[in-house]
Amino acid sequence: MASVEIENLIKAFSRLPGVGARSARRIALHMIKKKDSFLEPMISAIKQVKDNVVICPICGNYDTSSPCDICQNPKRDEQVLCVVEDVSDLWAMERTSFFKGRYHILGGVLSALDGIGPDELNLKSLLSRVDNEEIKEIILALPATIDGQTTSYYIAEHFKDTNVKISALAHGIPVGGELDYLDDDTIKTALNARKIF
Amino acid sequence: MASVEIENLIKAFSRLPGVGARSARRIALHMIKKKDSFLEPMISAIKQVKDNVVICPICGNYDTSSPCDICQNPKRDEQVLCVVEDVSDLWAMERTSFFKGRYHILGGVLSALDGIGPDELNLKSLLSRVDNEEIKEIILALPATIDGQTTSYYIAEHFKDTNVKISALAHGIPVGGELDYLDDDTIKTALNARKIF
Repeated sequence: MASVEIENLIKAFSRLPGVGARSARRIALHMIKKKDSFLEPMISAIKQVKDNVVICPICGNYDTSSPCDICQNPKRDEQVLCVVEDVSDLWAMERTSFFKGRYHILGGVLSALDGIGPDELNLKSLLSRVDNEEIKEIILALPATIDGQTTSYYIAEHFKDTNVKISALAHGIPVGGELDYLDDDTIKTALNARKIF
Repeated sequence: MASVEIENLIKAFSRLPGVGARSARRIALHMIKKKDSFLEPMISAIKQVKDNVVICPICGNYDTSSPCDICQNPKRDEQVLCVVEDVSDLWAMERTSFFKGRYHILGGVLSALDGIGPDELNLKSLLSRVDNEEIKEIILALPATIDGQTTSYYIAEHFKDTNVKISALAHGIPVGGELDYLDDDTIKTALNARKIF
């Protein structure tokens, strides 16, 4: 229908996660309409990322400096390591500005179904960090799914006989969550983990 | 949180229609992860569009040739003109491969609320096309909203005393539509426009 160039742009967008054919067409058209304010800035934004962003060799974060800003920051507590599945989880943690330690990005969770074993994850580098750095506590911030929890247990098991303290994010009712909208498992877990006032 | 370059990429994506902050982060991360298969192709797709796509001076379509492929195509019926609001509507019509005439893109519809009057639309060029081309019929394929229908009436009124036939897309139950899910106005309109078997 449209010219090859436009079709290619639509195709490029429709390959992005969460963008269907319809949204891709809408995005492409919007960009073409506002050529100057969209096309050139988008090209330069992508180019900047392409040319400058690297994977941090220590934690697996994406950054323009290597090691990444967080690993290099002397103000971050080097004794506490937060293990997350993905960079997006690191971003979510950082948005809270609450955690002051450092990170380790697993790059996934164990999954028998998807054929992801320990060798597919950044587990070896986690073990060697624990051996070589002064880590006192590992906070497991993995997803509250079966695979995520299996991975948490797997890691906890590894450090069972060491001096490293292993903790995990608490499960329960999300802040602002209404009981009526929550699944049974969450309510059960929250009940089990109830706190005395 | 993330580096300036990544933040800029996220910001560039979040400015696109239908992409919120969360999707923008997801898209950016996805692209960074698959650098080779996403970043470079995306840059070249955008660049191709930026360098080559122009607005057809006749109908307002976006294409790399000027006039556009449809206006240039001798196989398209030059006597029938389909008036649409936007290029996306032209694309929607073309996907059906059913209409064999040519198009005229208004670039919007009349809207008192948004301050869009006749001068803001490509109406003058429509009138001059009718004067200079051999147009026998104008099919109004404008949205079935109040503004869209007002615009249709406005255009129909203009050609009232000419030999040009003015028609509009039929309103009724969408194919595959279940009555239970349709609004009252659609059902009323369909009932009013009922056809004898």
